[in-house]
Amino acid sequence: MKKRILIPGPVELSPAVRSALATPMMGHRTPDFNAILEECWNGLRYVYQTKNDVAIITGSGTAAMDAAVSSVVSAGDEVICIGGGKFGERFPKIVRAFGGKAVNVPVEWGRAVSPADVESAVSKSDAVAITMTHNETSTGVLHDAEEIGRIARKNNMLFIMDAVTSIGGDDVRTDGWGVDICITGSQKCLAAPPGLGFAAVSERAWNVIENNSGKRGFYLDLASYRKSLKKSTTPFTPALSLIYGLRVALAELRAEGLENRIRRHRMLAAATREAALAMNLELFADPTHASNTVTAIKIPVGLTDSDVRGRLKDEYGILLAGGQESVKGKIFRIGHMANVDNVELLGVLSALEMVLARAGHDFTLGAGVSAAQSRLSSL
Amino acid sequence: MKKRILIPGPVELSPAVRSALATPMMGHRTPDFNAILEECWNGLRYVYQTKNDVAIITGSGTAAMDAAVSSVVSAGDEVICIGGGKFGERFPKIVRAFGGKAVNVPVEWGRAVSPADVESAVSKSDAVAITMTHNETSTGVLHDAEEIGRIARKNNMLFIMDAVTSIGGDDVRTDGWGVDICITGSQKCLAAPPGLGFAAVSERAWNVIENNSGKRGFYLDLASYRKSLKKSTTPFTPALSLIYGLRVALAELRAEGLENRIRRHRMLAAATREAALAMNLELFADPTHASNTVTAIKIPVGLTDSDVRGRLKDEYGILLAGGQESVKGKIFRIGHMANVDNVELLGVLSALEMVLARAGHDFTLGAGVSAAQSRLSSL
Repeated sequence: MKKRILIPGPVELSPAVRSALATPMMGHRTPDFNAILEECWNGLRYVYQTKNDVAIITGSGTAAMDAAVSSVVSAGDEVICIGGGKFGERFPKIVRAFGGKAVNVPVEWGRAVSPADVESAVSKSDAVAITMTHNETSTGVLHDAEEIGRIARKNNMLFIMDAVTSIGGDDVRTDGWGVDICITGSQKCLAAPPGLGFAAVSERAWNVIENNSGKRGFYLDLASYRKSLKKSTTPFTPALSLIYGLRVALAELRAEGLENRIRRHRMLAAATREAALAMNLELFADPTHASNTVTAIKIPVGLTDSDVRGRLKDEYGILLAGGQESVKGKIFRIGHMANVDNVELLGVLSALEMVLARAGHDFTLGAGVSAAQSRLSSL
Repeated sequence: MKKRILIPGPVELSPAVRSALATPMMGHRTPDFNAILEECWNGLRYVYQTKNDVAIITGSGTAAMDAAVSSVVSAGDEVICIGGGKFGERFPKIVRAFGGKAVNVPVEWGRAVSPADVESAVSKSDAVAITMTHNETSTGVLHDAEEIGRIARKNNMLFIMDAVTSIGGDDVRTDGWGVDICITGSQKCLAAPPGLGFAAVSERAWNVIENNSGKRGFYLDLASYRKSLKKSTTPFTPALSLIYGLRVALAELRAEGLENRIRRHRMLAAATREAALAMNLELFADPTHASNTVTAIKIPVGLTDSDVRGRLKDEYGILLAGGQESVKGKIFRIGHMANVDNVELLGVLSALEMVLARAGHDFTLGAGVSAAQSRLSSL
């Protein structure tokens, strides 16, 4: 049985990226390898829509979140942390792990943050930074980053944004929105293998980092990455194989074109949402702020996670993501990012319908696929 | 021109490891992937000669060094740091980065640490830990770990050892020597791709880590790795491709057998040292404490780094390592670890002789290769 993964990362790799991973080793302190890194930095700046330096960290997206927070914060510093999902709520944990004080802006899971709530928290705090997860992978919500960037700038706070599941799949204007430290990971919309985290850092943020005598960190101190960037290298031995793969993934992304790629993701997302509704399913995320890279769908009353995801995996070899933490067993999530295309999505939606029908869910077999077809042929 | 790398990591990968890197992605929170991780943990415990839990960290060897120090140290804690090379001297930098006080035990580069010096430092300190780099990659020195382990245990300090270029190539008795946190990296003697750091942690060390309320770290907090280990997983998305490669590299290591592998490395090292002397070259490291995985050789008076390494690279496609920091331009280093075999080493030594002869170095062409042949046929 052919296996398919449509989780919100890691994503399936293209054949060319997989082949690149098998490239022989080379010296990591050589002009030849520096040139490969330069290609990656160019590709990253393109997809980040930034002129900023981008640190390439061997580690997961969380390593890059840790690097952002720990490089900026000193013990006792306040940081305003926007919640609303597992990843947004990871920031306060990181802040506390480095002795900072997290000021939480709670957001109901499935809803988008209200900028007024952020303004209110900001007005009572002298925080050094605001953190937010742009596209909340755990809930399928896309928050409004531009507005938060404005609030941060107006109040002279740094804006640290986790864009792990938006960059490369949706519009992320790092410079245009004033994101001071913008984080992503390799294994999501960039369609590269997992194991690399990235942080694009503004001059404003470098200034804080390079003058932060109270920071705690060595491997994840962003200042080291900047020093090495100036010499076209990384401060520690990088994961060469993953860099080989990243280079090809970024070249494929550029060949598709960022605008086309964003449009493709938006079409896939709209088709998925419309199909779900036509299958008599309920969407978990506020439809005005739905993610374009991952869709969270409620498990219908009377059905269980194993009725849906379990059967899809066992009978069709399709891996979707389950709910996490407070929504475990209550939702399932379809990752339609990176290399997922129309045909694959239609096949998966068809299988989902067949599984739902067999589990006794009340809907018209074919209605979902038909809704998706309409959307996908509406170009 | 065929490229060959004989640097002390990253090392060339076997064809099977390279192919494994191209394995398709899978869900990283699935029983199938957990089983792959379990295979890796078994292989790691074998090569580490330990029963301890081994944390698999996506990051370089330095990430694992950072994790060891930052998980154990609180601000103000003293740590005794044995020097003697670039990597041993990295520990005090990490200790200071986390607010600890490094008590340096200086060691002349190229010499091994004197246990009496460590005893003396210990007697004046209430340090929480002693750090040492077992096989100092920058100088080609192998320190005596067993004795340091004894001192640490006697004084109730943790023993943190960087075994990045010894594990898998030389004898490292993690449990037998009482190494509390034993660190290695994937891209050295394990013959896996770079990007994974490992830390084997003793019960004594877990006890300190889990009760250390003053530690600073999130991504590199070893406590998280232990929690996940109990569920056969990792706390953050691992670099699946690298894990696929690691699994095969560890299986190849086990097929060779640890004893055979150590013997092979010792033979290659002895052959290299004897060849160097027969080429009228001087060894950098104290011959009583020479590394079995990397040999440091002085650049002869009158010759430059580019006369030796530059020409080897340009004319023969062979990459050797240069000197670092205070010995930059003064030594070159041959990494004879992981998959390097007799034939490859003999070819490289032959090329080295030809380069030296052309640069006017005074020796008998063929003498070095002949010495190596004698050693390698002495089995």
